[in-house]
Order: sequence, then structure tokens, then C-alpha cells
Amino acid sequence: MIRVVKIGGHVLDDDAQLRAFCHDFAALEGPKVLVHGGGAFASRLQRALGMEPVKIAGRRVTDEATLQVVTMACAGWGNKQIVSLLQAEGCPAAGFSGCDANLIRARRRAPLEIDGKLVDFGAVGDVTPASVNVPVLQALIGQGLVPVLSPINHDGEGQLLNTNADTVAASVAAALGAELTLCFEKDGVLSDAEDPGSVIPRISQADFAALKAAGTVSDGMLPKLENAFKALRQGATGVVIKNAARLLSPSGTLLVL
Amino acid sequence: MIRVVKIGGHVLDDDAQLRAFCHDFAALEGPKVLVHGGGAFASRLQRALGMEPVKIAGRRVTDEATLQVVTMACAGWGNKQIVSLLQAEGCPAAGFSGCDANLIRARRRAPLEIDGKLVDFGAVGDVTPASVNVPVLQALIGQGLVPVLSPINHDGEGQLLNTNADTVAASVAAALGAELTLCFEKDGVLSDAEDPGSVIPRISQADFAALKAAGTVSDGMLPKLENAFKALRQGATGVVIKNAARLLSPSGTLLVL
Repeated sequence: MIRVVKIGGHVLDDDAQLRAFCHDFAALEGPKVLVHGGGAFASRLQRALGMEPVKIAGRRVTDEATLQVVTMACAGWGNKQIVSLLQAEGCPAAGFSGCDANLIRARRRAPLEIDGKLVDFGAVGDVTPASVNVPVLQALIGQGLVPVLSPINHDGEGQLLNTNADTVAASVAAALGAELTLCFEKDGVLSDAEDPGSVIPRISQADFAALKAAGTVSDGMLPKLENAFKALRQGATGVVIKNAARLLSPSGTLLVL
Repeated sequence: MIRVVKIGGHVLDDDAQLRAFCHDFAALEGPKVLVHGGGAFASRLQRALGMEPVKIAGRRVTDEATLQVVTMACAGWGNKQIVSLLQAEGCPAAGFSGCDANLIRARRRAPLEIDGKLVDFGAVGDVTPASVNVPVLQALIGQGLVPVLSPINHDGEGQLLNTNADTVAASVAAALGAELTLCFEKDGVLSDAEDPGSVIPRISQADFAALKAAGTVSDGMLPKLENAFKALRQGATGVVIKNAARLLSPSGTLLVL
């Protein structure tokens, strides 16, 4: 079975954490894929270039100058840094963005009405399991490579598109029938946000509805869980939410349908 | 036979030229590899970030901050822009830097004495035909992919290294026993620098020695030709120097041993 692991910006932003993560990821047995973000670094780079990041409803408005920065940050520095560290750990990593080998073709997001205003997100794309070029991705994995995917994808007509790394990971896991591991900075989904030890070991879809109703999960965790359950319904064989620093331990929250 | 084509920064810097080149490159028949630079864009990005590019004897001194910029510029924006444009032309391009699939392992350049001073170029690497992972590169080509190589390579120990794109192209062509096409902004090697029509159709190694002695070739063309003849001696099956805008026409200067 293939494992798809997703890491967020906080790991990329800390050299020691990134090295530790790469060490652990290299030790994971079997075929695997890594998906990474890089938004925090992209925002810092935007500011260093005198551009102010604009986000509406949590999504980055991506004009052409912003697209260039995000591509440089994620597909350039972030991706190649991870790959070179994994190679040093003996992991046969190869970095790809969606344009490479036409691996992921995204659909440009149409302007959305938000709070009564029409918002054009620019070069932002949406990805589904159908966006993933399964035969080519499987051929690369079959060749012994470990694909490392940046969240930069393309529309097939020469336009790069900025996409959400969580959605990319979920779509790839669903398309491959893989197990999805979503890494973040906590040990799992917590029943008490103030207590880092209150990890809920297992959440079914029914549990999730109850947790939402009770307000136990909220804020940043909600879209992550929605996204994860969607991946399960679309074909992922399992989803685990865990701490990036504990990749190899049997920890975290298991999500089941 | 495989063709290795190299384009320089001037093509990358002009959107119309880049699109025209990608259109032509996609039409080239048979297995092929594209190698690109990106130094001019990297220098502009350095300046936009308040860093002054430092070059000694034509080579960029690459501290860690500069490496980050060059990686973002070449492996990020340049590489992904080319790949997405090639994909739009129906060319099954896939972008790689040397760390990806361990395709090219460079050797960090030791400090060099230049004009009596020891110069440490930092994260700068040198590449030879032996640096090229021929089995993996051939497997990717055999799978129907068209590798697009950035000049960012790695040392296998987690360090990215900035390398010279001309040398990368020459090394890849030699290692694959491929034909090398070096594209630039003129129609070939000129016998009269003031006359763009004075293209020398064919230059042997003996001719080259005579042209050098007579001062006919000099400046930027000298290292390009030295590099090209070296590639021929190391296994490239042919070298053509031509205009990036005339990739598909039987033009340019043919180099022979």
C-alpha cells in the first residue's frame, strides 16, 4: 500500500525540524509520496519584496507577481531543499510540481461571492482526485522513486496555479487508494484545545458531526477534517492526523468513515 | 539518438521568445532533454531583495542567501514556467534539478586562487559526465518524458549547489552520447563580430586553435567553445551552436573534433 504524507509550513520553516522529519520519512517503509506546503515562507518572501500578502477567507489572492513568488518559494526552495535532504538520508526522492509529467492538472477557481463581494483569487486552482495523473505517478513510484509534490499545479494550457497542499495530498491519496497521513504541530485532534495530551484516538464521520455540533473541533481543524473525510469517501484507505515530529510512532488520530 | 538542447537566460527573460522557443522545442522529434540557465533573473531577484550579486572571474559567489535566490529563480520559476509552456504544446516535459532522483551530483568547488587572492565561491559546484546518473535519466526518457534540467544540483549530502548550465548541458550530452545544441542570441560562431551573417558553418579543433590564435573568437564565446569541444572529446556525438529563435532550421555552427 502507498502512503501519502503531508507536511505544512511550520516544518519547512525550522531547519532542525525539517531535518528530523526527513530522517523519519526516509525510514518509512514501502512506497510513499510526500506533499508539502510553503505558504509561510512565501508570505515572508512577498514582504521582503515589498508586496503585502492578501488573503480572503483564508485563501491567498494570487496575481501574477504573487504566483511567481509562491512558485519560487514552494516549487523552488522548499521542494529542492526537502529533496536534497531526503537524498542525503538515502531516500530516492524526486520533486515534482503538477506541470511536471502533467502529474496534476488543476482547474482555475472562478470568482467567488464572499460577503456579498465578487472575489477573483487570480492564479488559484482547485484539485480533485480526477486531477491526478495516476498512471504516470504510479510509473514513477514503480520505478522506485519517492515523489515529493509541491502545491504548484498547472491548467495544461501553460498557466501555473497555486493550490492548497492539504487538498493536493487528499486528492493524491484518494486517486491512488493510499493511506493519508496529515502532519501538523499537535499530536492529533484534541478533545481539549488547552490539553496537548487529550488526543482523540479515533473519529468516525458520525463522531465528527457530534464533535462539530459540540464545538469541540473548530477553526483550523475543521477544514482539515472535512478534507480528510472527503478523501476517505473518495478512495483513501485511511487517514491519520499526527505530529510531524512523531511520524514513526503509532500516535495521532485515526479517521474512519 | 538523444538531443540535449541548452538555452540561456536571454530566452527565459523574454516571454514571447520563450513561448516561441517552447513551441519549436516541442516540435523537435525524438528523445530530448532541455537544460536551462536563469542567472539574469536570479540577479534581478537578488537586487529586488537588497542583495548585490557578486561575480568573480564571471562566476557568481554563492553564499546561502544567494543559493536560496538562485534555487528559487532557476529550479522554481524558470523551470516550472518552461515545463508548463512545453506541456501546453503537448510536450511531455518534466522539470528536474540534480537532487531529484539523484540525477546530477556536483562537487563543491574548492577555494581558488584568482589574481593572488583565495576566493571561496561558496555553494558552487562543478559537474562532469561522471556526475550524471545515466540509468535513471535514461529510464525517465524511456518512459516518454522530456527532462527539463535546471542548473541547481546537489552534493548527495543535503547541500544544493549552483552550477554552470553550459557545463551541465555538455556533461549530460557526453554522458548520454547525445547531440548537443547550444542556443544563444546569435546565428552561430561569427567570423566578424560586427556581421551577424558571417556564421562559420563548421569548426574543427584545429580550426578552433587557429581562430583563437587569430583573435577571431574571444570573450564569451571562448569558454562556450572550450566546453563544447570537451563534450565532443568526452562522448557527445555532435555539437551545434545556433540561435534559439532558429532551433528547427539547419543553421548554426557545427563543431567537430
